[in-house]
Amino acid sequence: MNVSARNVFKGKISAITDGAVNAEVELELSGGDKVVAIVTEGSVQSLGLAVGKEAVAYVKAPWVMLLAGTPDVRFSARNQLAGAVSALTRGAVNTEVAIALAGGTVVHAVVTNEAVLELALKVGAPATALIKASHVILGVPA
Amino acid sequence: MNVSARNVFKGKISAITDGAVNAEVELELSGGDKVVAIVTEGSVQSLGLAVGKEAVAYVKAPWVMLLAGTPDVRFSARNQLAGAVSALTRGAVNTEVAIALAGGTVVHAVVTNEAVLELALKVGAPATALIKASHVILGVPA
Amino acid sequence: MNVSARNVFKGKISAITDGAVNAEVELELSGGDKVVAIVTEGSVQSLGLAVGKEAVAYVKAPWVMLLAGTPDVRFSARNQLAGAVSALTRGAVNTEVAIALAGGTVVHAVVTNEAVLELALKVGAPATALIKASHVILGVPA
Repeated sequence: MNVSARNVFKGKISAITDGAVNAEVELELSGGDKVVAIVTEGSVQSLGLAVGKEAVAYVKAPWVMLLAGTPDVRFSARNQLAGAVSALTRGAVNTEVAIALAGGTVVHAVVTNEAVLELALKVGAPATALIKASHVILGVPA
Repeated sequence: MNVSARNVFKGKISAITDGAVNAEVELELSGGDKVVAIVTEGSVQSLGLAVGKEAVAYVKAPWVMLLAGTPDVRFSARNQLAGAVSALTRGAVNTEVAIALAGGTVVHAVVTNEAVLELALKVGAPATALIKASHVILGVPA
Repeated sequence: MNVSARNVFKGKISAITDGAVNAEVELELSGGDKVVAIVTEGSVQSLGLAVGKEAVAYVKAPWVMLLAGTPDVRFSARNQLAGAVSALTRGAVNTEVAIALAGGTVVHAVVTNEAVLELALKVGAPATALIKASHVILGVPA
């Protein structure tokens, strides 16, 4: 099976925090990087999500916000994935930026070319990918 | 009135599931296809949402994730709209993909050209559009 | 510090409405325009959000939906920022549209060139930017 999302993060569920309507599901990826998703309690039930089970987190590249340099701001986004730029693929208007995290996971973001210039993004530069937990789609083997 | 969203789904509200803060609103489109939105209870009140009333669901094309082939994964996304590719409009970096659902509704997604190749998307191929319910904006006639 | 988001709205927190899991945070920008974000109560605590404190709202341009002409529809989106088109930057597929609000804040949206034509967007034309509160990322000085 294939999906169009540039970010397909495979891992094991390391924590589930239940709420009245939504649950926060933490996925530990191979290498130790972590991604948090917010899904409905209905999905927790129907997908049989539980700690220790395998799951996949999907995030489209345009949903990822990038942050360069040393942060002097703290953010509300639940996922703040720090790493270094590993590749830049430039288009006419947008650039796809790959960020390699400490644990080896690569996160892809699509940002404007203008942003690449302003952030002075280049291979090797430190960068952080911000992803709202509510923007992550979870999947489990059928 | 006009909106920039590529997906404008007109229908009638077929179900509302209330929560403490948010409500899940199901819209039945002409043809029988269904779209679910999560909006605040404040919006349910201020828009006067109720079963049987007409409403419109708006979804920007970049918020739609595509899935090709036979799914061997189950997803947390509330909207999983299965159909067949009816058109592909290729740009330099992205392609707009139209998916015709069983009931006749057409869903538009913007995905990278790379994804079109990987998913082997072509007119007539089966595909599923995944849309998180929290990414849907609802409207009602003023 | 720099972020890739085209919309960086600086202001002061003018209201916080607490919920069980999420809080709605209203930011008043210089000039009086307002932006509302939904963040988790966990973020309210960890960021020390409180009325009167300075904060910044970040929104990527592709997350903004545009509305042209006189609205004959009411929407569920919490942020409905009315203004006039102040600039159009056209690419091969998409156009970046700048909307100047009454208070002077400028909102950037990325929409398809097709949408620009359909909405007849041009400099000076009235337009409204719709942004779901759950799509806004908040930041505070570290």
